[in-house]
Amino acid sequence: MFYGDTLFEIKIDDAKYWKNCVDALVRLVDEGTFSLSKEGIQFKAMDPSGISMVCFEMPSKAFSKFEIEKQANIGLNLENFYRILSSARPDEQLLMKDSGGRFLVEFIGKNSRRRYKLPIIEIRKNLENEPKVEFESDVEIRGESIKEIIKDASLLSTYIGFKTDKNSLIVSAKGDFGELEEEHLGEGDAIKKMDVKKSTEASFNLEYLERMVSACPSGNHIKMHFKTDALVKVDYKIGDAEVVYYLAPYIV
Amino acid sequence: MFYGDTLFEIKIDDAKYWKNCVDALVRLVDEGTFSLSKEGIQFKAMDPSGISMVCFEMPSKAFSKFEIEKQANIGLNLENFYRILSSARPDEQLLMKDSGGRFLVEFIGKNSRRRYKLPIIEIRKNLENEPKVEFESDVEIRGESIKEIIKDASLLSTYIGFKTDKNSLIVSAKGDFGELEEEHLGEGDAIKKMDVKKSTEASFNLEYLERMVSACPSGNHIKMHFKTDALVKVDYKIGDAEVVYYLAPYIV
Amino acid sequence: MFYGDTLFEIKIDDAKYWKNCVDALVRLVDEGTFSLSKEGIQFKAMDPSGISMVCFEMPSKAFSKFEIEKQANIGLNLENFYRILSSARPDEQLLMKDSGGRFLVEFIGKNSRRRYKLPIIEIRKNLENEPKVEFESDVEIRGESIKEIIKDASLLSTYIGFKTDKNSLIVSAKGDFGELEEEHLGEGDAIKKMDVKKSTEASFNLEYLERMVSACPSGNHIKMHFKTDALVKVDYKIGDAEVVYYLAPYIV
Repeated sequence: MFYGDTLFEIKIDDAKYWKNCVDALVRLVDEGTFSLSKEGIQFKAMDPSGISMVCFEMPSKAFSKFEIEKQANIGLNLENFYRILSSARPDEQLLMKDSGGRFLVEFIGKNSRRRYKLPIIEIRKNLENEPKVEFESDVEIRGESIKEIIKDASLLSTYIGFKTDKNSLIVSAKGDFGELEEEHLGEGDAIKKMDVKKSTEASFNLEYLERMVSACPSGNHIKMHFKTDALVKVDYKIGDAEVVYYLAPYIV
Repeated sequence: MFYGDTLFEIKIDDAKYWKNCVDALVRLVDEGTFSLSKEGIQFKAMDPSGISMVCFEMPSKAFSKFEIEKQANIGLNLENFYRILSSARPDEQLLMKDSGGRFLVEFIGKNSRRRYKLPIIEIRKNLENEPKVEFESDVEIRGESIKEIIKDASLLSTYIGFKTDKNSLIVSAKGDFGELEEEHLGEGDAIKKMDVKKSTEASFNLEYLERMVSACPSGNHIKMHFKTDALVKVDYKIGDAEVVYYLAPYIV
Repeated sequence: MFYGDTLFEIKIDDAKYWKNCVDALVRLVDEGTFSLSKEGIQFKAMDPSGISMVCFEMPSKAFSKFEIEKQANIGLNLENFYRILSSARPDEQLLMKDSGGRFLVEFIGKNSRRRYKLPIIEIRKNLENEPKVEFESDVEIRGESIKEIIKDASLLSTYIGFKTDKNSLIVSAKGDFGELEEEHLGEGDAIKKMDVKKSTEASFNLEYLERMVSACPSGNHIKMHFKTDALVKVDYKIGDAEVVYYLAPYIV
């Protein structure tokens, strides 16, 4: 099936969808390594400041073509990659393969082909291990709602506090110009599901949280996993892909 | 009806509407005193430069709840207040009350409550007296039209001249790049009504005028009251509320 | 037909249309001379850097009134003129005439008249001669498509290469972050018509090209005329008006 020295050849029917996936990565990190195996594509990286991490997985079945000779690691400048992907037109397919030591991104339209060759860069850092935390409460919340909550808190502060209780999520923020307390009762418009083994309380950096939820597709839900004064795990689906973020707590 | 030491408790069914009212104030001044009495809410302030003034009045009947123990003055940072009000979601109600020396703003949704506490600040200035002028001509003009006229003049100048005559409003502006003369015949698309006791002629600062009309709701009309070389009075309704501006003339 | 010393009086029924025409000029040059004759209006100018040229022609029949006593040259600051024209409201007519050594632009609405008087400036340069080149290949391409192609190349470079072949247009760009090769097969979605006498290859400055195509009305086609390592001619229609651009090649 392979011609010559091509190590992998991957095709996805909706180029814009893949753009949305890479959007979820580039919000946090500007470069990183895509790990390709028969199972699919993985991506893990810490943000430069080291307080957050993103883990991404897309199964091979989500691609219309997924041919790979052997496990491969492709280091890319994500900002550059994302800008290129942003040129996707409606109805364009996307082909990605290696070509003479470069990463080839080809948009395939009805009467046109657009090939970008990007340098493959070396990323020194190894794949990170995901933190293992026993979370005490899980909240499934509408993506639009958590985006609004983050905006509310940003009016006053650069930090946000989350308290979970049996049947409510309480958000707080405090700054020179006032303070906010926002209460969401379980399983209403905003919250789809709450599973609180134990009440929790923790605070986080708003800017990082904002970046983490911003690529969540409209209409999707986001799962947030809390433990008192511990890191938060934030995850959601982008089609068949899953993106997981971790963010260190802000200890006041 | 009152619990403990709450001095006032005011509720409005459409939080976004109250945001639009405060918008009309914050365009001109960044802080000021809301005066609460059984009749309703009043607000009067001069802009920091002292060339303009805004007077606002909203009757108690426009609120779905208006409980007040005694006359109260609430000094607020308007920019901060407006930013908080901008977070209003559709279908949210708004509750405002005092709470331990702070001003509490609560947005009430179906399954959520969002409480902001803002500091009450001391404004040294007393309520201003509205200037008393015998205006000589009144023009009622579509809000969109006066906004366009102001934009036209801004292309050339930072000042705008208004001339009223029996049956026409003539606008002029002059700058290094040319001059404008714009004529509106009475009671057409732009002008709803003209009442000219005496022809008038006066010029004004464009930036202030632009700020004064910018909060006028789409579709509403604006009344302008002129006297030769005297200040202009500009007023319009925002629902049940009335906002009145005064702007000193620009003497060329 | 003429009253007093008016040298010309020109009327166009859709003021916004004339704004779109001047847009095509102001993208490249900030001042220039409109040349009025019985045949219509002509405008020719080089951009300040001297690497490009714009030629514009609108026949007198495109105007609803075109009265002119004798050939006249009207030098205008185009940026200023375009800003004034941008104030055009829907359904406004436009009258242009000379008035006491000034250029009068009058917008005529149902109940309003808006007159701008602009200074007539002296442009020292004479009308330029259009370059005479025997082009070897002509491509007629959808305006939206060439705008997209320019954007694609701008992701990587400030220059763009065009190769024409019997049945394809190949676009290329190269920069520090990668390279692009984009292939459009003849007469598909993007390309309406190709006439390739001889294969050609030439490169151009992206910024200038972008400015040249940006005023092309939505849905229109653009003609590009190529010759290897020679200048490109770019032309399209804006209603009855024709705009032609020339851009010097970029020799790598």
